[in-house]
Amino acid sequence: MSAQDRHNYAVLLAGGSGTRFWPQSRMLEPKQFLSLHRDSSLFEQTILRIKPLIRPDHIYVATSELYRHQLLEITARHNIPEQNIIYEPTGKNTAPSIGVSVQVIHNLDAHARIAVLPCDHLIKNSRIFLRLLKKALSLCAEELVIFGIVPHRPATGYGYIKAGSCRRQSGGQVCTVDKFCEKPDMKTARRFLKAGNYYWNSGMFVGSSTVFLKEFAAHLPGLFKQLSLISGVSDIAGVWEKIEAISFDYGILERARRVIMLPARGLEWSDLGSWQAWDEVSEKDKQGNLLKADVVNLESRNVTVLGTGKRLIATIGLEDLIVVDTPDALLITRKDKTEQVKKIVDMLKEQKRQEHYAHKTVKRPWGTYTVLDMGDGFKVKLVEVKPKAALSLQYHVKRSEHWVVVEGVAEITRDNKKCLFHPNESTYIPVACTHRLANPSRDTMLKIVEVQAGKYLEEDDIIRLKDDFGRK
Amino acid sequence: MSAQDRHNYAVLLAGGSGTRFWPQSRMLEPKQFLSLHRDSSLFEQTILRIKPLIRPDHIYVATSELYRHQLLEITARHNIPEQNIIYEPTGKNTAPSIGVSVQVIHNLDAHARIAVLPCDHLIKNSRIFLRLLKKALSLCAEELVIFGIVPHRPATGYGYIKAGSCRRQSGGQVCTVDKFCEKPDMKTARRFLKAGNYYWNSGMFVGSSTVFLKEFAAHLPGLFKQLSLISGVSDIAGVWEKIEAISFDYGILERARRVIMLPARGLEWSDLGSWQAWDEVSEKDKQGNLLKADVVNLESRNVTVLGTGKRLIATIGLEDLIVVDTPDALLITRKDKTEQVKKIVDMLKEQKRQEHYAHKTVKRPWGTYTVLDMGDGFKVKLVEVKPKAALSLQYHVKRSEHWVVVEGVAEITRDNKKCLFHPNESTYIPVACTHRLANPSRDTMLKIVEVQAGKYLEEDDIIRLKDDFGRK
Repeated sequence: MSAQDRHNYAVLLAGGSGTRFWPQSRMLEPKQFLSLHRDSSLFEQTILRIKPLIRPDHIYVATSELYRHQLLEITARHNIPEQNIIYEPTGKNTAPSIGVSVQVIHNLDAHARIAVLPCDHLIKNSRIFLRLLKKALSLCAEELVIFGIVPHRPATGYGYIKAGSCRRQSGGQVCTVDKFCEKPDMKTARRFLKAGNYYWNSGMFVGSSTVFLKEFAAHLPGLFKQLSLISGVSDIAGVWEKIEAISFDYGILERARRVIMLPARGLEWSDLGSWQAWDEVSEKDKQGNLLKADVVNLESRNVTVLGTGKRLIATIGLEDLIVVDTPDALLITRKDKTEQVKKIVDMLKEQKRQEHYAHKTVKRPWGTYTVLDMGDGFKVKLVEVKPKAALSLQYHVKRSEHWVVVEGVAEITRDNKKCLFHPNESTYIPVACTHRLANPSRDTMLKIVEVQAGKYLEEDDIIRLKDDFGRK
Repeated sequence: MSAQDRHNYAVLLAGGSGTRFWPQSRMLEPKQFLSLHRDSSLFEQTILRIKPLIRPDHIYVATSELYRHQLLEITARHNIPEQNIIYEPTGKNTAPSIGVSVQVIHNLDAHARIAVLPCDHLIKNSRIFLRLLKKALSLCAEELVIFGIVPHRPATGYGYIKAGSCRRQSGGQVCTVDKFCEKPDMKTARRFLKAGNYYWNSGMFVGSSTVFLKEFAAHLPGLFKQLSLISGVSDIAGVWEKIEAISFDYGILERARRVIMLPARGLEWSDLGSWQAWDEVSEKDKQGNLLKADVVNLESRNVTVLGTGKRLIATIGLEDLIVVDTPDALLITRKDKTEQVKKIVDMLKEQKRQEHYAHKTVKRPWGTYTVLDMGDGFKVKLVEVKPKAALSLQYHVKRSEHWVVVEGVAEITRDNKKCLFHPNESTYIPVACTHRLANPSRDTMLKIVEVQAGKYLEEDDIIRLKDDFGRK
């Protein structure tokens, strides 16, 4: 990193709920935490991409309390300090998220140069991205810099940027912005593509903290007033209620005078806005199929099947479909109809169904649990505890629990007595018995089968006495 | 029943493996035991249909040992004696099945009039069928009587009967048979339909035992010779090995001189030869959909979805598909490609996969078990025991078992000690411990969760000491 790079910062926008990738995404596991393209999640890929230019302690994340534990697991791995995570009390769109983050950074470093980045997009070639980002950071002292993606098809799903005059500068073009255009219809999108001076708006913004704050002051004075009351992360909750929800694009960018655009030539980018968008950038076999599941296929073409590998999926004579199989929900959709997945999720919410909220295997800070079966008066769970992790010290008012250790070693506390249990050993936790389950191992998972008995078996029957994760 | 009806008999052919309804049908649960159309299975519907004309103790069933327990459950309900069930040692097609059954009946009643009926077909209007059957039984003293289904479309999936001369007799037509035609191509099928004197071969045959045996003697003398060695059901196993596999249609019917055909006018019949055939006779909603599952659907037409009700299935913009969802296997197929399901099953057999053999919930004479989960060194099962039923007295050489009663009351024997266990009570069965699980209740099911522990957890690690169902 150069001397100037010391002032580089990033704000990662990680609050999106990503209903468009249902049933793989859920309220508790939004798109940014899915490994949609590589082994790591889109969120982690975003961190890895910017690391050469931005120090970990200069990376800030704006997100929701809902994602605290899965997010901390990733940020800790990359040495991003816990105090850099900004939990928004409620969703208020992008302008407030960016506003408070920029203010917090500006208070620490008045010369900050900040890249605001979504972390649920796909960028295939990091090198090109880094070159663009470096340039944007070098140009952002007095102007907001945005990236214009070069269209290769008449897309109707993106907003467009009409470039004004362009000049060559340090190995690439820099353009003024003529105007921003909303998502066009197909005819208009074709015209844009043909014209050659229209670009997709990628939702990435780079600016010095001074420029950002100047623009907030000019175009969203109400928000700016609240920002001025913030000296640190802990002040955000106090002003949040008074802040109006509005997008940065609409509230600032479209009104800002000082905006320049870098055409992102050669950047393989997708906003992964739908299963279809994801499908388009995924590799297929000769028949146009992508079969990432336990599939037996006869005569299908242009079919994508994603599964868990735990269930057999047989397909015969299908065309142009996407199938997404998860333990509790299955989606079968025509490829060109995947934008309607959002409607399905809305219907599930309305019907107060669980399938939009959490997966069958539920993530907890200490590991996961999976409901294997339930019936009248009982529930069977597989509980998996990470090395060195412990559930809270707790008791239940309405249920008893039978535990059988099946893998690893359990350290079980029952009424102040601590004991080690090995596979094929079991114990019983009666109603009101204070207990705790912990995995004392450094490197192996602990698995137990839990059979709950009682008339009321919901998750809220937990009285927590101690918890390693600050839960009550 | 009239005096002559005293000599009415039926032979139900219930040995078919019905791979065409996979994944709902499995090797252990073939089509005839599926409730594909009403609440009762096709096999039970066949019994119910003939009961007004044929006494229960005159109903014989030719089947395979594999289906013993599920079959006996149904036949017992209808007072069909256990000694009327003929278990064929191996599958040898229809001529041997019919031959041995006819011989057994003839030995008991030389004036027997026998209806040989498949029990995996659908007949919607029993009254018309009974009228036809009554007539066939009255005409069968000197001739084999077959039913010709009146075609309503140019089907290529059936064999055809070309009728010769027809005469009116007792309220209906009786025709001579000109010839039998194999499954035609579409062009020929269209010609047959237009000609008007071609009928579908329904696979139902009626004849006196004397006529049947005369035809066997004339056309399959080798088989006839073996039949003459049979005096009762217990002799069948001794001759079976020497009998050649051949179909009754090919071995007898097509060569027989004395065959007449009753046109089955008005009979709503289907052989349910594929998911598509079943789909055609099933009722749809206004959009042509049949959604027998927990489905959320947007904009699909002519789609059939069958599910367990335990998983959500979301469908968007689909057309002309059949989806069959079961706990361990999912089928998605174009409607006009369902004959390829058989190919899928063949592939699964070749790959020695379990999904063609048994359902995830496995039926046992005492109830069912379902594997909820398995991992390295453990397996979790839900075991459901019917009222008054007991598993065998047994022990295991390689595994221990933890049992938690979750519904009903268990009578558990451990090393000669018998104890009652109620919900929320548990016990442990170590390796080599002789044990037995029984449900002492008259009317409620017993459910236990079993956690097995050990390095080897296959079903064959059972040493049975006593068994109520004659298993070893």
